[in-house]
Amino acid sequence: MTKHSKILVSLLVGASVAVSVSSADGELQKVMKARGLSEVDVVRAAKTYNPSGVKDEFVVFSSAGQAGQVIVYGVPSMRILKYIGVFTPEPWQGYGFDEESKKVLRQGNIRGREINWGDTHHPALSEKDGKYDGKWLAINDKANPRIAIIDLADFETKQIVVNPVFKSAHGGAFFTQNSDYIIEACQYAAPLDNNYHPIEDYKEAYRGGATMWRFDPAKGKINVKESFTIEMPPYMQDLSDSGKGVSDGWGFTNSFNSEMYTGGIEVGMPPNEAGMSRNDTDFLHVYNWKKLAELAKDSKNVKIINDHKVIPMDIAVKNNALFLIPEPKSPHGVDVSPDGEYITVCGKLDTHASVYKWSNIKKLIDAKEYAGKDPYGIPILDMKKSLHGQAELGLGPLHNQYSNIDGEIYTSLYVDSQIVKWNYKTLKVIDKVNVHYNVGHLCGMEGKSADPQGKYIISLNKLAIDRFQNVGPLHPQNHQLIDISGKKMDLLVDMPLPLGEPHQAVAIRAEKLHGHVRYPMGTNTRTDEIHEGKTLAGQERIERNGNKVTVYATVVRSHINPERITVNKGDEVTFYLTNLERAQDEAHGFTVDHYNIHASLEPGKTASLKFIADIEGVFPYYCTEFCSALHLEMMGYMMVKDPNKKYESAQKMKMQTMTPEQLKAEYDKTVATNAATDAVIQSVVKFLKENKYEKHKVVADLVADAFVQYGQIPDQKKLADKSLKDGDIEKAILFENMIWQLMVKTADVGIRAKDALVRLVATKQSAAASAGEKAFGEGGCGGCHVIGKVSSGPDLTGVLQRHGANGEKWVKDFIMNPEKMYDEPYVKGMIDYFNLRMPNQHMDEKETKNIIEYLKWVDDNANLF
Amino acid sequence: MTKHSKILVSLLVGASVAVSVSSADGELQKVMKARGLSEVDVVRAAKTYNPSGVKDEFVVFSSAGQAGQVIVYGVPSMRILKYIGVFTPEPWQGYGFDEESKKVLRQGNIRGREINWGDTHHPALSEKDGKYDGKWLAINDKANPRIAIIDLADFETKQIVVNPVFKSAHGGAFFTQNSDYIIEACQYAAPLDNNYHPIEDYKEAYRGGATMWRFDPAKGKINVKESFTIEMPPYMQDLSDSGKGVSDGWGFTNSFNSEMYTGGIEVGMPPNEAGMSRNDTDFLHVYNWKKLAELAKDSKNVKIINDHKVIPMDIAVKNNALFLIPEPKSPHGVDVSPDGEYITVCGKLDTHASVYKWSNIKKLIDAKEYAGKDPYGIPILDMKKSLHGQAELGLGPLHNQYSNIDGEIYTSLYVDSQIVKWNYKTLKVIDKVNVHYNVGHLCGMEGKSADPQGKYIISLNKLAIDRFQNVGPLHPQNHQLIDISGKKMDLLVDMPLPLGEPHQAVAIRAEKLHGHVRYPMGTNTRTDEIHEGKTLAGQERIERNGNKVTVYATVVRSHINPERITVNKGDEVTFYLTNLERAQDEAHGFTVDHYNIHASLEPGKTASLKFIADIEGVFPYYCTEFCSALHLEMMGYMMVKDPNKKYESAQKMKMQTMTPEQLKAEYDKTVATNAATDAVIQSVVKFLKENKYEKHKVVADLVADAFVQYGQIPDQKKLADKSLKDGDIEKAILFENMIWQLMVKTADVGIRAKDALVRLVATKQSAAASAGEKAFGEGGCGGCHVIGKVSSGPDLTGVLQRHGANGEKWVKDFIMNPEKMYDEPYVKGMIDYFNLRMPNQHMDEKETKNIIEYLKWVDDNANLF
Repeated sequence: MTKHSKILVSLLVGASVAVSVSSADGELQKVMKARGLSEVDVVRAAKTYNPSGVKDEFVVFSSAGQAGQVIVYGVPSMRILKYIGVFTPEPWQGYGFDEESKKVLRQGNIRGREINWGDTHHPALSEKDGKYDGKWLAINDKANPRIAIIDLADFETKQIVVNPVFKSAHGGAFFTQNSDYIIEACQYAAPLDNNYHPIEDYKEAYRGGATMWRFDPAKGKINVKESFTIEMPPYMQDLSDSGKGVSDGWGFTNSFNSEMYTGGIEVGMPPNEAGMSRNDTDFLHVYNWKKLAELAKDSKNVKIINDHKVIPMDIAVKNNALFLIPEPKSPHGVDVSPDGEYITVCGKLDTHASVYKWSNIKKLIDAKEYAGKDPYGIPILDMKKSLHGQAELGLGPLHNQYSNIDGEIYTSLYVDSQIVKWNYKTLKVIDKVNVHYNVGHLCGMEGKSADPQGKYIISLNKLAIDRFQNVGPLHPQNHQLIDISGKKMDLLVDMPLPLGEPHQAVAIRAEKLHGHVRYPMGTNTRTDEIHEGKTLAGQERIERNGNKVTVYATVVRSHINPERITVNKGDEVTFYLTNLERAQDEAHGFTVDHYNIHASLEPGKTASLKFIADIEGVFPYYCTEFCSALHLEMMGYMMVKDPNKKYESAQKMKMQTMTPEQLKAEYDKTVATNAATDAVIQSVVKFLKENKYEKHKVVADLVADAFVQYGQIPDQKKLADKSLKDGDIEKAILFENMIWQLMVKTADVGIRAKDALVRLVATKQSAAASAGEKAFGEGGCGGCHVIGKVSSGPDLTGVLQRHGANGEKWVKDFIMNPEKMYDEPYVKGMIDYFNLRMPNQHMDEKETKNIIEYLKWVDDNANLF
Repeated sequence: MTKHSKILVSLLVGASVAVSVSSADGELQKVMKARGLSEVDVVRAAKTYNPSGVKDEFVVFSSAGQAGQVIVYGVPSMRILKYIGVFTPEPWQGYGFDEESKKVLRQGNIRGREINWGDTHHPALSEKDGKYDGKWLAINDKANPRIAIIDLADFETKQIVVNPVFKSAHGGAFFTQNSDYIIEACQYAAPLDNNYHPIEDYKEAYRGGATMWRFDPAKGKINVKESFTIEMPPYMQDLSDSGKGVSDGWGFTNSFNSEMYTGGIEVGMPPNEAGMSRNDTDFLHVYNWKKLAELAKDSKNVKIINDHKVIPMDIAVKNNALFLIPEPKSPHGVDVSPDGEYITVCGKLDTHASVYKWSNIKKLIDAKEYAGKDPYGIPILDMKKSLHGQAELGLGPLHNQYSNIDGEIYTSLYVDSQIVKWNYKTLKVIDKVNVHYNVGHLCGMEGKSADPQGKYIISLNKLAIDRFQNVGPLHPQNHQLIDISGKKMDLLVDMPLPLGEPHQAVAIRAEKLHGHVRYPMGTNTRTDEIHEGKTLAGQERIERNGNKVTVYATVVRSHINPERITVNKGDEVTFYLTNLERAQDEAHGFTVDHYNIHASLEPGKTASLKFIADIEGVFPYYCTEFCSALHLEMMGYMMVKDPNKKYESAQKMKMQTMTPEQLKAEYDKTVATNAATDAVIQSVVKFLKENKYEKHKVVADLVADAFVQYGQIPDQKKLADKSLKDGDIEKAILFENMIWQLMVKTADVGIRAKDALVRLVATKQSAAASAGEKAFGEGGCGGCHVIGKVSSGPDLTGVLQRHGANGEKWVKDFIMNPEKMYDEPYVKGMIDYFNLRMPNQHMDEKETKNIIEYLKWVDDNANLF
């Protein structure tokens, strides 16, 4: 609202409306002024702000580049939700620190070498009919050619496969439209075997290619044996895309060094960047992977290299399954339209986007109408005849994303630092927006699927420069969210990326994801099978077999069982750890100090840690998650003694001991505290039951967890009573104290359940009551008055009834002019009791009336406080 | 603005004002409705939204818990800016993957074992007079007791020290008020030596303590030799704080197991959580570290354990330097007030906060008035006499932060999931706010320094439960930002933490941080000295010495020099890599595929990578940062040959070669392209000079970078001309192409500079012109008309002059009713030329007038387009 119209409102409409122009509006003006925000800024803020607890519409999976991980964030709030450990060990998740995840990570060893990072580039979501099904995420490693599979049920990496023939792989992962295969294209050409070949033999001995990884979408596993690679010339393949719809069964992979230049700056040659960008066109590789997959089943069509099937180029050519089409200078993206008919390629050193038409290409292929052959004998299709047309977009066009509007496409311009919206059918530019700075990929909402959603485009900028507070020479990258729902694109907000250098990102509707929050008890989460080390309560034990020590342990709020373990120096120690919790988000962590091991234990998970106890000493182990009030006490000791050493026991210190009477007194006190605490719990239980907590899933989950805690009390009580009977009062005290701890945990969750229930079942506040609650808060009334409780002032529940028939008037007068009533007997009594006078908070009549409405609402819901 | 008042405005004030109630306001209402936002939500959005490029007021450093890193984020936008690698290797930063950072990381080895993670808990900012100076950040590792020092000039970890006597350390790091020392307290008591001692000897042989690390605030280094440890009983020390102001020179450390319970759940004893929480009070340790530091200089006062000075308890007691005060049940935080006079301790199993008064404590100490002694002979001060008083806060009080208001303190309540605002002088509760869920620490703005800033409190919640989209059983944690500037606390927004489990966070005014963006050329960034491997342009070389190969390499947009390296299998290879860039944010990365090495190279940095070339083959190396348009081409090959093998050269393929005429034609074309590109560059240069780019630092920085690119052209030109003269036309073409690449890089940065300058120097738009630009955009006019350029429609620069004296009317009529003018000769000519008709976009008169105002503004600034 402009200042001008605001003045008019107050002049013409008068004071009463000025109040209903809510104070939030006035506050908004204040905040805008203080923070220098324009009205447009406020609209953008509103478009990206999620109130507490409100979830996002889309979830983005972004590569983290050299961090070797996957980044998960929400749109439009642009809040990062998770970094998933993929190729890089990550101790918070236990990834690479427990035995189960180590097995996954070590699947990625190359020729025996442990690789502890990856250069992730292109995440891909599994598809059904070209649409995302929300089940699996695949991502490649460019530096160490590998593909990882992440399970979107628990966001854990479940498989890593190493490409047996490539020495690098940039253009993956890309699912085929029913997730039968994942395409991974080579980047830097190299010999497919593992031998040395001099650079002078580049054209003869170096090769590129595309690996077709066979994927089982039901199990989420790559079948390595059924996978194969299509040999390609050493043109330096770059990005790929899988055909869909009309082009299903075909793959498209571009390239940037059809010059086959090999550099040599050190011997006076121009650098690679000059030689690899010499030609005006490079080659788009077009291949019939469906046919090639059939061919690969016959051993006469494949060469076995490094125990892997490779289809030689001549076999592919002979079977009409591999073609080349010229494409503009050093392209980056190749992006198939939702229906599969248009294939857009952007030459990053050309100002044009080239739109190929699948029906044109198919016609040429079917007619065997070739413009020529490349030096390796691969048929070349005529570029012009393959094209639908070209559009001039600007400097450095790179990647494309589709929206839900027919023909609408969005392209990133690296050099111009812009996103351009255009139409790939009419080839007209519609709009451009500046981004900051130098965008690489861009991410639409399901923008590369057969079902793009429109709404937003994210610009994945490679530079941040001046966008954020300086955090040293290594800057965060910047993902910028752009609203594309209007005619003009509108850049809404910047999101710094705090770790890693993302390349591509893919977005999916949040409603399509169905992650779970707990595992079946005793799950090995990397195989999703029941773990051999699964241990339930009561099954905890330490087994010794020669120099092998196996600890079957459980963790639960707030103790680890067992708590004391002694082993010999040199023993091989295995911990099997099962988290007995069922409550959402009740993860525990586990480490043994100094031993470089760590496990994250989500509810129901079993993980194992294995090490040689090779140094003598005393090593605490503990729960590394702040899981509960007594989290620090959730610990134990591993003691490693040297079997070849003799140890003398320390001379015992003389400690003061308690008399039996003192012990009995402490016991009685503890039992009394427990009885009092139990009364509180019972009152909460009564409240919950009376208000039918079981009708509300959120509350019912919390109550179930509270009952789990509470249900452990009878066993402890038995132990306490037995100790007492046996005359061990000290032990009885401790078991009683354990009961209290369980009560505290019950109360912790129970109170959360009660609060949640109150919000759900209270009567709806009138606008006046709501304004009154606000005035009550802002007036500082809560400092002395706590609803439902005597605090530094009286409980106000029922206050309107407390002062006779004219209670409302009494309260109103007292709020507005308390000092006039200090001498009234009731007020005087209160002043004496609390040693405090009700101050005049200068509430006006309106505010006072609203407060009274609020107090009425309190009385209506008195049972809830 | 409420709906009610909105209707009134339009009824009473009429249409003309309805327009000036800007369309942004109407859009805001639409967004609020679509996203279900209340007015209060919009205010909160405005309080936390940063428009693109706007920086934050405060920067927070948070521990990342078991991720072993430090998280940096901005307030109030709550955007995470960086994860700093500290105890965990992190490949994006090259941390633990290049030799320099490995040296830092390996300082953290414990008894020879490589530790690759840490459990970071408590970050601390260096202080001067108790105020933050923005220079250094220290953080502890609880699991493997260590302290790391991070340099806030470049946000890199520069030092790690291992605690030689503790087996775990939770209560660190805490700087003394002039950063002379860093306090690190023990957590789980253990023998100070490295030997086995049975748990039965707990009281006799297990010890706690506080290590006083001597810190040099000028150099940012811990001096290990001058550091010492104060032996303490095995009470399980927890958090500490350093005295300041009146209590400077003293340290405060609390504890939670003064029961000295040692568990034994596996032998039928109650678990630790029961035994360690039995007593109603534990002990606050109060020690005169200044006096103890003096004592430690005399060898007769110390025991040397593991080559480290330990002051035994009896020496500390004899010198009146160590005392105990009872404190409520199992406390967590101990927090000294800004002036040092009040020390607040929260017993997490008590509902009270206890406020001790330093003057009370000092009086008892000076008078040697003790209430007794503990079993180790340490004097105990009377609790009541030490206290200022207690305040009942709620269930599970943990930690405290101060604001800029005298007496105001904020405390986290774990069990109640609340933040409570109260006054530690009057002991009155002022306000409470619910958080979601189970808060641990809380973070005020400089809230533990001598100069707290108020404004915000961040609640560091341990659970997220239902706050965010499900990302699997391991949930993000949740930091909630609370506005404390009003009377009532106002919870503004949730921030998920995507990696790690933060414990404590510290916040500093952004203006106090002075990070840099580039290093002096050739810097070893971990020592801040010039690197022995520093290599400038022209100094690149490969040196061989027996089986040692040293590569002195440089990286710069967009090539690595050298590009081809052949070594023998078994050679020890060292790469020294220097980033020659000066431009902000122009980082490069470097890896050799399959060799598990990676370096991040910020401008000016030199890093080294070292490995044994133990597998034969061809291994691409490349720049891992998307640094420029030709980033993919920034690569080379390392070839590893087996000296014991014989290799045969491949039979050369027959390739088509170009005729000299073809080559000459390509050469001529390339030179012509360069001339044309140079003309564009010169026009940009002219523009920049005419508009005095040098007056604007941001632009001048960009122009300087562009000139660096452009300045490399003459050398390449010489090489091209020489090649041409020598008759090697192909090489000449390549060098000419290199010139083009340099021109593209020049243009990339130059255009960015031009755009920045245009924004800075254009005349200010009138409100009408601004509305007109918007109408122009939303009307889709930009689809055909690009200002300053003929696109799918004519350039509109000068359009108002183009149609005679009545130009404005002509344009207005044409916008509003174009179809009526299709037959005018000029319009007809245009329609024929562009093959497009100007459509009727149904602009009203007001919009049309505004567009004309916009076009006037365009003409005023025609020189800028």
